[in-house]
Amino acid sequence: MTITLAYLGPQGTFTEAALLRMPISQGATLIPAQSVNAALELVRAGQAAGALVPIENSVEGSVATTLDELSHGEILEIVDEIAIPVEFGLLVRPGTTFADIERIATHPHAHAQCLEWLRANLPGVHVLPAMSTAAAAAELVEGANYDAAICSTAAATHYGLEILADGIGDNDVAWTRFVLVRKPGQSQPSTGHDKTTLSLFMHQDHPGALLEILTEFAVRGVNLTRIESRPTKKQLGDYFFSIDCEGHIDDERVGEALMGLHRICADVKFLGSYPRTDVGNSPIKAEVTDKAFQEADVWLAAMRERQN
Amino acid sequence: MTITLAYLGPQGTFTEAALLRMPISQGATLIPAQSVNAALELVRAGQAAGALVPIENSVEGSVATTLDELSHGEILEIVDEIAIPVEFGLLVRPGTTFADIERIATHPHAHAQCLEWLRANLPGVHVLPAMSTAAAAAELVEGANYDAAICSTAAATHYGLEILADGIGDNDVAWTRFVLVRKPGQSQPSTGHDKTTLSLFMHQDHPGALLEILTEFAVRGVNLTRIESRPTKKQLGDYFFSIDCEGHIDDERVGEALMGLHRICADVKFLGSYPRTDVGNSPIKAEVTDKAFQEADVWLAAMRERQN
Amino acid sequence: MTITLAYLGPQGTFTEAALLRMPISQGATLIPAQSVNAALELVRAGQAAGALVPIENSVEGSVATTLDELSHGEILEIVDEIAIPVEFGLLVRPGTTFADIERIATHPHAHAQCLEWLRANLPGVHVLPAMSTAAAAAELVEGANYDAAICSTAAATHYGLEILADGIGDNDVAWTRFVLVRKPGQSQPSTGHDKTTLSLFMHQDHPGALLEILTEFAVRGVNLTRIESRPTKKQLGDYFFSIDCEGHIDDERVGEALMGLHRICADVKFLGSYPRTDVGNSPIKAEVTDKAFQEADVWLAAMRERQN
Amino acid sequence: MTITLAYLGPQGTFTEAALLRMPISQGATLIPAQSVNAALELVRAGQAAGALVPIENSVEGSVATTLDELSHGEILEIVDEIAIPVEFGLLVRPGTTFADIERIATHPHAHAQCLEWLRANLPGVHVLPAMSTAAAAAELVEGANYDAAICSTAAATHYGLEILADGIGDNDVAWTRFVLVRKPGQSQPSTGHDKTTLSLFMHQDHPGALLEILTEFAVRGVNLTRIESRPTKKQLGDYFFSIDCEGHIDDERVGEALMGLHRICADVKFLGSYPRTDVGNSPIKAEVTDKAFQEADVWLAAMRERQN
Repeated sequence: MTITLAYLGPQGTFTEAALLRMPISQGATLIPAQSVNAALELVRAGQAAGALVPIENSVEGSVATTLDELSHGEILEIVDEIAIPVEFGLLVRPGTTFADIERIATHPHAHAQCLEWLRANLPGVHVLPAMSTAAAAAELVEGANYDAAICSTAAATHYGLEILADGIGDNDVAWTRFVLVRKPGQSQPSTGHDKTTLSLFMHQDHPGALLEILTEFAVRGVNLTRIESRPTKKQLGDYFFSIDCEGHIDDERVGEALMGLHRICADVKFLGSYPRTDVGNSPIKAEVTDKAFQEADVWLAAMRERQN
Repeated sequence: MTITLAYLGPQGTFTEAALLRMPISQGATLIPAQSVNAALELVRAGQAAGALVPIENSVEGSVATTLDELSHGEILEIVDEIAIPVEFGLLVRPGTTFADIERIATHPHAHAQCLEWLRANLPGVHVLPAMSTAAAAAELVEGANYDAAICSTAAATHYGLEILADGIGDNDVAWTRFVLVRKPGQSQPSTGHDKTTLSLFMHQDHPGALLEILTEFAVRGVNLTRIESRPTKKQLGDYFFSIDCEGHIDDERVGEALMGLHRICADVKFLGSYPRTDVGNSPIKAEVTDKAFQEADVWLAAMRERQN
Repeated sequence: MTITLAYLGPQGTFTEAALLRMPISQGATLIPAQSVNAALELVRAGQAAGALVPIENSVEGSVATTLDELSHGEILEIVDEIAIPVEFGLLVRPGTTFADIERIATHPHAHAQCLEWLRANLPGVHVLPAMSTAAAAAELVEGANYDAAICSTAAATHYGLEILADGIGDNDVAWTRFVLVRKPGQSQPSTGHDKTTLSLFMHQDHPGALLEILTEFAVRGVNLTRIESRPTKKQLGDYFFSIDCEGHIDDERVGEALMGLHRICADVKFLGSYPRTDVGNSPIKAEVTDKAFQEADVWLAAMRERQN
Repeated sequence: MTITLAYLGPQGTFTEAALLRMPISQGATLIPAQSVNAALELVRAGQAAGALVPIENSVEGSVATTLDELSHGEILEIVDEIAIPVEFGLLVRPGTTFADIERIATHPHAHAQCLEWLRANLPGVHVLPAMSTAAAAAELVEGANYDAAICSTAAATHYGLEILADGIGDNDVAWTRFVLVRKPGQSQPSTGHDKTTLSLFMHQDHPGALLEILTEFAVRGVNLTRIESRPTKKQLGDYFFSIDCEGHIDDERVGEALMGLHRICADVKFLGSYPRTDVGNSPIKAEVTDKAFQEADVWLAAMRERQN
């Protein structure tokens, strides 16, 4: 039986390219969704077994939207992540030349990342907005009233377009990170190379709240890899923190840090522990290995026993 | 002589609405820019005396873009901020009724914030992307092939459109915050109710770097109001921190914290101290008032003098 | 069957006075020991069920000695503490008057605390050292070649001496604190008003070691009431920390702090949890009550369960 | 003109031995004082230019007394320190043999450090208290009614006694540290290898006060080498902290830390910056060198200038 996976569409987006690189997508039915929210809703409704959505440095969707959706709706869990390089190309219908290009379509974020190239190579060209880079390509094929689309070069094959220029992004080492979310209960055990995503809601915006949170991590030797204060949408100045840390909920040091956070926060949303995609795991100090925690546990029990 | 101010356009955006509420805009020439970057470039090129751009929780532009542009280009300074409520309306050409609406245009972020209302009131309607909410309205007037635009109700007057529905955002208390940036040297002195914006670049992503940064603030009693780790664009996992803190660079406690950050960071970009727009200033403890710092300075000088 | 208790003697010391105030001494056989070490050895050898020794602000014995003995020898546990006011008197053989006093004996520490009174009332008097204040009284009775002893007024009755002057200490609110030590296994459960004594040995004298230790306490809301860095006797600059903290080893917050210390220290000597004698217990924040820890434990288990 | 220096006497103490090793004592008139307090008073009264007193791990005097005297009386400054090994010998009048020894005199602290040797070599011998180890030797010469004195072997020459046994301390690497105190205004500038002594009085015994203090040091990279909470003598549970840290008041990092402490403490007593005697200086991180502080100062001035 094949599984169904949703992603931020349409076909030809960087999200689809990322999903195709993940082993889980082999043989799966892939459904493009119109928005991050729509992709997540397909999972919540049971119409997809999982969804891949951009979470950081994306050119196609709002990271903030993803973070907020994951933090506020029915709970979903991140079970995997993937990061791929973002390489923009200028795609045209077969036969179009540079001289023919008067109007270009792309997503505003992609536009922002190709400004220098456009200034240098196509000064004065008119740029139209599209819902996504892939949508710009799709509508170009369907005869839209513009001459080229800026999108992933992978979309060229998909839509039968030609690549007129490659690597036109101003920043030649951009990456986008995506997360695969599923319903709780489908994640894997600690691999020794994991990441955990949390949303932490404060009791109030008191000075020092963030320092307290970070100390809960630091005292157990847990390193953060991402942090953002996000408005709760209730009122300006009312925040929650979206955080990625190294390690897995089943690791002792992460578990104790989570308990500490649970004690001091108004709410802790655990959004998943999953294998991290990058290589840069910080070394785990001897004092915060599972072994160190277990020995401390045994020692404490002996001391408590001794005095009674 | 009138001054010229740029803003994230086109006319009718929430950014324009915010700018019109600022005293500095009275009598000024206002120039709508196509993007945050374009607005900032007008200031850098000397073609505008200042620019208003969204910085937090925006529906019209990428906060991340604004933060990154301010952190990486030629230095500009934030000299003021303003926050306004975001209220979406459904705008149509005069005479259009609910029954006529088949296609709607708006910016994707605005779309994301009106999903519930659309599901309940216009199920099955097709939503087209626009470069901004105001662009959707502008093009509707010009005869675009859709029937309604989701944008600020203020745009109705501007473009001669009718408001078919008001307050259609899913979250009835959304705010967007904007900052006014100018070339350095035009800001005002400490008002006792200020905010300071910084970009902090780390020497390396070492565990505990963030804790060190926060401690520099905490030990001088300086409260943070916003923090985001942002990729440096160089490689995944290489971050800088974008931070807003309470207080003004001329305040002693902020000055000493900045010096501490300067010592431990690879680079500190000071993006401005400016009067804050909201009311929620944290009380300043007696031990970190300017008076406390000055007394400590006098005392230290006396001790150093005494022993020599 | 009566129990036997040792104390820092001889009879008539403040230590004996303190022991007599403790309910455990009723009906017990009390043995004066020549030194703190001798008292502890009586317990270790099984010749006494417990020993009372001074631990802080003592006029009769070295606090440092007590701390070092407890930290380095065969483990003993503190099971109770008591603090009593230290009031010095000038004791003489019946019939002696001020005019007769040429030589006085007392312990050097007691001497140090009566300097001002002596200067004002007996200028030029010669002060001889004694092993303890009580020894000075005892030997006075036995005909020593001096005319008065400075010691506790309680000793007057004991030794049949007269109190020529009372309250002659320079500091009229001095207190001495004593601890009752026994072999492990005889202490009592958490009373909600306890203190715990620890000796913490560092891996090395690295900058920040103390801050790490204090953070282990602070992050669990455990307040310290005493701290001393003590040389390990191995070499100058090699330290351990002697610490008293609020709470009982059976309290969740103390237990987790102890486990944290166990992980980061070269050695943690747990010297006992016991009811504290003074009234100044810090309030326990809601986030570090046993209930908060237990709820966090239940929550973590549920999260771990959920994802598997 | 010769200077006069006081020390904790009498002649033959370890304190005198330490003083004789200091260059300042060459050609100086040395006055033995009866107590730490008496030595300090000679300086305060102008009768001595300086005084050497034990401050840590002493066998001859109360460290606590020294700390308290320095913290509470008229201000004196520590201008130098010295540490010497403590080696005990058994001194006798010429001709005395082991078989003759029935009674021994020494200071109680020295007694405590030779217990094992005495048990093994002179079981059952009677030990009498003396005001100091040197006093035991002095009175032995004068015909006191005991047969031997435990004191520094240096005292043998001084008093014309014989060394019957050498190195009889239970701990063969004991050290005592002494400080030279003078009136303020006579210390020397930063040598790059200094120590600073402080007494810090808290506003109240609030949980976290100590952590705040340590953070003031840590955030400027200043390492502590000694800490003790000391009762203020006013009431049990009311403490001050006696602290030694690395560095000199003229060092930027120490100066800023002192200012921070001045802001948060009820009172900061600066007791002196002086060359440290031991070799174990912690390396100074690049971020807290004087250069780093001065660059930060220049940078802040430029930022403040820029925006005005």
